[in-house]
Amino acid sequence: MAGQKILIDAFGSDYPDQIIDGIAEVLNQIDGVELVVTGDEEYINNALIGKDFDKSRLEIIDCKEVVTNDDSPVDAILKKKNSSLSVALKILREREDVGCMISAGNTGAIIAGSVLILGRQTGGDRPTLLTILPNDKGGVTCLADCGANVDCKPHHLLKFGEYASEYSSKVLGVENPKVALLSVGTEDKKGNALSKEAFKLLKQSNLNFVGNMEAKTALSGDVDVIVCDGFDGNVLLKSIEGTAKSVVARSLALLKKYSKSSDDMKFVKKAFGELMQLLDFNSQGGAILLGTKKPIVKAHGSANSQTVINTVKQAVKICESGY
Amino acid sequence: MAGQKILIDAFGSDYPDQIIDGIAEVLNQIDGVELVVTGDEEYINNALIGKDFDKSRLEIIDCKEVVTNDDSPVDAILKKKNSSLSVALKILREREDVGCMISAGNTGAIIAGSVLILGRQTGGDRPTLLTILPNDKGGVTCLADCGANVDCKPHHLLKFGEYASEYSSKVLGVENPKVALLSVGTEDKKGNALSKEAFKLLKQSNLNFVGNMEAKTALSGDVDVIVCDGFDGNVLLKSIEGTAKSVVARSLALLKKYSKSSDDMKFVKKAFGELMQLLDFNSQGGAILLGTKKPIVKAHGSANSQTVINTVKQAVKICESGY
Repeated sequence: MAGQKILIDAFGSDYPDQIIDGIAEVLNQIDGVELVVTGDEEYINNALIGKDFDKSRLEIIDCKEVVTNDDSPVDAILKKKNSSLSVALKILREREDVGCMISAGNTGAIIAGSVLILGRQTGGDRPTLLTILPNDKGGVTCLADCGANVDCKPHHLLKFGEYASEYSSKVLGVENPKVALLSVGTEDKKGNALSKEAFKLLKQSNLNFVGNMEAKTALSGDVDVIVCDGFDGNVLLKSIEGTAKSVVARSLALLKKYSKSSDDMKFVKKAFGELMQLLDFNSQGGAILLGTKKPIVKAHGSANSQTVINTVKQAVKICESGY
Repeated sequence: MAGQKILIDAFGSDYPDQIIDGIAEVLNQIDGVELVVTGDEEYINNALIGKDFDKSRLEIIDCKEVVTNDDSPVDAILKKKNSSLSVALKILREREDVGCMISAGNTGAIIAGSVLILGRQTGGDRPTLLTILPNDKGGVTCLADCGANVDCKPHHLLKFGEYASEYSSKVLGVENPKVALLSVGTEDKKGNALSKEAFKLLKQSNLNFVGNMEAKTALSGDVDVIVCDGFDGNVLLKSIEGTAKSVVARSLALLKKYSKSSDDMKFVKKAFGELMQLLDFNSQGGAILLGTKKPIVKAHGSANSQTVINTVKQAVKICESGY
């Protein structure tokens, strides 16, 4: 599987031990996958003692420095040249046997490093961070940008649409993905200065652009790709997460209030167990940085071993798709 | 009650008959309230036939034109000078016995007319549309701007904070309201070009500014006022509404799936009945346009008679507060 190895930055997240646990589990659960891991080799080997897995499919690249969440993104990339993140980005750029990288570290540093070390796609623009929303139709909707670019020009939004549409089609297998622009109304002329100009560019593009959409239909599954600047995308994503949490908490409190016995709550618990899975955005893997020479999967900073398994599966899918 | 009469634009919404029904109900349910209503007098009188209410507290100002949702906002104000909206705005400006106005019509036209006919507050800037979010603590959080101003400068956001803080304090009775700026992270330096500059102005102001907040905590009740530009505010508000609807639908479907009898669903129905009330943003009345000579309550375009009752109660509260 040339170009199909998955690279993991083992440090920089909240729980590196969870990342390392996940690495051992991946090697046990996913047949044939080969991992390249950057980080403190001694630490990693100690954390792996007593775990049973196929060591021949694990390569550790020793590097001692760690980019933390307190580091300024660009400074971290320029100064910590021997960090697990910087070394991983260099390997991703140089080694043909590596197809995709995963990191749960400092998002800003990953984005800065993706441009400064890995490099943009030929003819590309700014990279975009795409996130996957589980929608009401049981499928998924791509949202780009979800926070990498908080100040955008109209042509950036066009590019986000192109990157995300290609991802939806190649990796998720959606035929002719429907692309919509986030706005304050569905009519063509609604929007702010940025979105009105982006609307024109998207309309003229080769994308299957279906027009403006409102945030209230973000989860409907009516479209495959939502395009917006990273500030709005972040507001949309986080308000979906926050509202879902709030509504679940309020529902459970009221169900408890009106239930007559603990028996009543048994089926409620089952239902809400499944609901939480539906609403668990991390179950889809991580956000994906697109527009760079090779894609990077950004896992949540609080990633646990299960997150590692989910993101490696996602990374394998990306590699196999030829994205 | 000089200056305490409530003015209602009876036309321009989806269901004017519901507005007129609501007017009769208000006069029956709210003691002493006096209404001034603009619109086609013959139509209104016909719709009121057979209804029993205190006619001495209702004044109808006859005007035949109607601003529709298809009208361009500024054109509608400049050309339809005898519309129920334009006439209402003129009355609000000129008559001292009228304290507050309600309309469920074209939002853009209300905002345009509020500047062109009614006029801004002395020393004021653009008017802002404030909406009330029912929060997890059982209280409410003000969000400004929620859609009136989609392209803003930093000083606009400062003004939105000032208007909303004054509303929270005077009308809602919150002592020293906590004001936060919507951003992509809670740290001081997070944000886009607009929010970073607005942050500085808010920090220097006399407001009780508590810093940046993320959309995921919008419903937490941790702050009293959320400040943002109208594009982001609209995305936030609509994604909260859409997500709440989606999560409720998914919950109910799963609860039905796991319930063993129709008896099981009885308490679920009670719980979700109360939940829907908690999540019904219209139960708090309408959005409020602030920064104009007198405040205007903007009811939802699909306002029904209950909405009219809620918004009149809200308008009375605003008048009594001396805002």
